[in-house]
Amino acid sequence: MRILLIGATGTIGDAVTAALAGRHQVIRAGRRGPDEPVDIADPASVRALFGRVGRVDAIVSAAGSAAFKPLPELGDEDFAFSLENKLMGQVNLVRYGLDSVADGGSITLTSGVLAQRPEAGTAAISLVNAALEGFGRAAALEAPRGIRVNVVSPPWVTETLAAIGRPLDGGLPAEVVAQAYVRSVEGNGTGRIISPERLAPAA
Amino acid sequence: MRILLIGATGTIGDAVTAALAGRHQVIRAGRRGPDEPVDIADPASVRALFGRVGRVDAIVSAAGSAAFKPLPELGDEDFAFSLENKLMGQVNLVRYGLDSVADGGSITLTSGVLAQRPEAGTAAISLVNAALEGFGRAAALEAPRGIRVNVVSPPWVTETLAAIGRPLDGGLPAEVVAQAYVRSVEGNGTGRIISPERLAPAA
Repeated sequence: MRILLIGATGTIGDAVTAALAGRHQVIRAGRRGPDEPVDIADPASVRALFGRVGRVDAIVSAAGSAAFKPLPELGDEDFAFSLENKLMGQVNLVRYGLDSVADGGSITLTSGVLAQRPEAGTAAISLVNAALEGFGRAAALEAPRGIRVNVVSPPWVTETLAAIGRPLDGGLPAEVVAQAYVRSVEGNGTGRIISPERLAPAA
Repeated sequence: MRILLIGATGTIGDAVTAALAGRHQVIRAGRRGPDEPVDIADPASVRALFGRVGRVDAIVSAAGSAAFKPLPELGDEDFAFSLENKLMGQVNLVRYGLDSVADGGSITLTSGVLAQRPEAGTAAISLVNAALEGFGRAAALEAPRGIRVNVVSPPWVTETLAAIGRPLDGGLPAEVVAQAYVRSVEGNGTGRIISPERLAPAA
């Protein structure tokens, strides 16, 4: 398959690239490319990306930022940033990207465990992640030409927990998380919220 | 209790007023008042409302609109409208309203069944409803002074189905739906997504 991966240079994106690149052509897109530069918060940049890349069999997004702050400190601009970036950035990958996906292809977005299991400081992130799941379930019903739409809901990734100095309990290694994206691209499910924990062997 | 009800003149708002007014003071707010005019899509209007109303024991929202259109027809402006109105309008009732709520009081928002069970045409509505549930769960963790935050997820309301000429199956009368709001205000749960179906006697 020819797969467009957005957010290719992040912790999850790296692992998804490694998991897919052996048997597919992966076009790595993101703010820093490396193959195609794109800023998902900018609708014109997203539209231009699809114009350059042409027909693909799958779009995979591991991209998007949202504000992590205590509720009283989350300002109007933090919500606006979160909605524009991780939420509408990914929603627009579906809206603007559907025409670029081959019949029977797929689009995979990324939410996160905080959608269902919030922590202090995650009000904007939990909002955005849950919104992506609600949108993904709905968009799957209306995607044309047999195109599938799924959302991967990663838990904390071990590498991220280590980087920010948090305990590693409850985290999954990025290479395990990446298998959820492989499942979405190579499987036949649609409208699914895929939790990598359910695919991981018991520890 | 002194209860500020936003969206007081809608189908659900009317029923919530009827259910609460016998034993509480209900201040009915909405685009058309009748007690306090407010446009939840306008942050300044929301802030002004709280400035006028002063301390309350509960804030209840049955307010907010989102765009219902087939996915290919949902434009950038439809998403912007939906995010600004039903989503951020209600999120801002929490953010700007918390300081107005008495210790141990509550805030209740409204999502809807399409968050979890989408239909064709509901991509923006399902996004917004799911987002409200993700936000509500998270905000409940950080609400100060024992203030509770819940989200009522109504099914289709029988009166609404009748008004738009759809079959009434699966709908609940507004007065039954209103009991979910009563539960949120008078109970002690927080961070809950309350489904009125679960409170209704079996048909």
